[in-house]
Amino acid sequence: MDDLKNKSLEAHKSFKGKLEINSKVSLENIDDMSIFYTPGVAEPCKEIFEDESKSYDYTSRGNLIAVVTDGSAVLGLGNIGALAGMPVMEGKCALFKKFADVDAFPIALNTQDTEEIIATIKNIADSFGGINLEDISAPKCFEIEKRLIDELSIPVFHDDQHGTAIVCLAGLINSLKIVGKEKERVRVVINGAGAAGIAICKLMLEYGFKNISLLDSKGMIFEGREGLNDYKKEISHKTNLEKKEGELGDAVMDADIFIGVSAPNVLTADMVRSMSADPIIFAMANPDPEIMPEDAKEAGAAIIATGRSDFPNQINNVLVFPGIFKGALSARVPKITTQMKINAAKALASTVSSPRPEKIIPDVFDPSVADVIANSVKE
Amino acid sequence: MDDLKNKSLEAHKSFKGKLEINSKVSLENIDDMSIFYTPGVAEPCKEIFEDESKSYDYTSRGNLIAVVTDGSAVLGLGNIGALAGMPVMEGKCALFKKFADVDAFPIALNTQDTEEIIATIKNIADSFGGINLEDISAPKCFEIEKRLIDELSIPVFHDDQHGTAIVCLAGLINSLKIVGKEKERVRVVINGAGAAGIAICKLMLEYGFKNISLLDSKGMIFEGREGLNDYKKEISHKTNLEKKEGELGDAVMDADIFIGVSAPNVLTADMVRSMSADPIIFAMANPDPEIMPEDAKEAGAAIIATGRSDFPNQINNVLVFPGIFKGALSARVPKITTQMKINAAKALASTVSSPRPEKIIPDVFDPSVADVIANSVKE
Repeated sequence: MDDLKNKSLEAHKSFKGKLEINSKVSLENIDDMSIFYTPGVAEPCKEIFEDESKSYDYTSRGNLIAVVTDGSAVLGLGNIGALAGMPVMEGKCALFKKFADVDAFPIALNTQDTEEIIATIKNIADSFGGINLEDISAPKCFEIEKRLIDELSIPVFHDDQHGTAIVCLAGLINSLKIVGKEKERVRVVINGAGAAGIAICKLMLEYGFKNISLLDSKGMIFEGREGLNDYKKEISHKTNLEKKEGELGDAVMDADIFIGVSAPNVLTADMVRSMSADPIIFAMANPDPEIMPEDAKEAGAAIIATGRSDFPNQINNVLVFPGIFKGALSARVPKITTQMKINAAKALASTVSSPRPEKIIPDVFDPSVADVIANSVKE
Repeated sequence: MDDLKNKSLEAHKSFKGKLEINSKVSLENIDDMSIFYTPGVAEPCKEIFEDESKSYDYTSRGNLIAVVTDGSAVLGLGNIGALAGMPVMEGKCALFKKFADVDAFPIALNTQDTEEIIATIKNIADSFGGINLEDISAPKCFEIEKRLIDELSIPVFHDDQHGTAIVCLAGLINSLKIVGKEKERVRVVINGAGAAGIAICKLMLEYGFKNISLLDSKGMIFEGREGLNDYKKEISHKTNLEKKEGELGDAVMDADIFIGVSAPNVLTADMVRSMSADPIIFAMANPDPEIMPEDAKEAGAAIIATGRSDFPNQINNVLVFPGIFKGALSARVPKITTQMKINAAKALASTVSSPRPEKIIPDVFDPSVADVIANSVKE
């Protein structure tokens, strides 16, 4: 790991960051300048002034998104601030280009105030065809995303929520096929009620899962529990309908599916043994999962997924965000709807022709995935 | 001209804008991903968290500027809004890359309010190594630039002011050599007291010109004239010390230098004839100058410059802005000072080895200029 740390520092330093901005047009002589700069450039300006939608014809925004962060929840590093989060944002932008040929530009916000974040993004949104919110902490990420979706006419997508939720749902669709269970009848436990946990829960409910319990650091969430924020309160009306109280050990007993977006090693082998037959374990804490795959397997898990590239079944957002935005940009949709997210999950699941326990989702380098997702969004 | 209009529209449409964002690093396999994305990317993040200045080592900001507009004064088109101004901003960014290998990204602001503009730029400034303000109307451009220079620790430069002023001063330096006059003794008339006119005047005063008169749409500016905004008032203390009143015809009589940043055809041949011997005429209104070069020449002008590429001596900002930022970024200066601007003007003038009336400044495609300017800034 020390070796990787040094390699990463050296590589970042030698390239001086990961992005560059290039001209798509030639500017070699006076004729080029007359066409792409003065005086010719006045013409596309006038056309856009007459009809704002023409900005998609005459500028780069039609294939351009912003990756915006306030740095309040960067990777597992926490609130390190936006400037320190920029290597992640640049990496994300590089992945957008690689996997979907979408141009993406990172914006580090010098504020962590909800209203200032919203105002700033609204003031620069015309430069882009879409906004990817990144590494903004819960619960403010919910308010920021909701407001921007309502107030802007371009797609806004908080990847930590929905990217994770879509890949997770895709993995579950194939997992259920393998173990022969139905979404309406399985019992699901989601450990972690931050941005990802709540988004996974919501998307699963929309897709048709009926029995989900969510846990935060204080244990099982139930309707009427004291101190719930608005977002947990909303979820409490639709989950844990028996209003059970308790810790993770209580929650997972007889459950069919465990989804962890929480902390290392919180799921014990005994807990897995207490689950129903053929349990499905998505242990996505990074870099150390809620239970190590070998331990889960020994305890009887039928299917195991993690967030890591060195185990099978990596639940990685990169399977989704490039294609989602590619589709949203090319269809020029004003919003990314729940139906689009479900379509994307189904499409992603369908790219694995014969799901098996060690292969419920495609490899992150599968070059066909982004287009499959993009097409599903357009439908 | 209709032909050029159509060519420009078609070319902009076929390329779908002029910019793209590329990854400088390879992301072909799990090893690449581990270095440039998770988990390796956490290392540069932590380093920047410990020491913010390391953002220049580990992210792209060290070679990256924002070209920011509110679209309130775009080319000669006026207040068409930032979105409609984006083809100009993208063109400018493409020129930064071509002439100085500086990465530049265009930001269209969805506000024209001074305080909101300042707040928004401050909130995104950490993403960049410098800010090029563009096509923001006077007088608010002065306040915006001043505040941002004071409140940010990266260089902020309003090109419409200072780029123009620097190229203009370079041209004047060589013009004075040709006609054998001294900056301390010549009488100068600047027609136009917007962003460019005021900046030209200020830089000329700093450089050592002593006798300058400035005119706005109401005629000559003099100390105590009613209705002057703060910026014209400030200038009125240092110019037109005789407090002459009058129109352009009154002002240019016996003047040595006319600088026009105003409107087409306002300088007549008779006015040129009324100037002192060997008059220098910079008629920079675009696309139609204050006087056509052939008319000025016939009336006795010794040297004529315009803003146009189809006449000799094109006063074009592109001679300056790429190199200024290249130098400012590579020396990582927090501000672009008056001395740097004067150095840049002198350096630009020096690139013409034997100035003559038809060649007072270099061609815009001269590949050596940007580095000469960049080096002058570093000194």
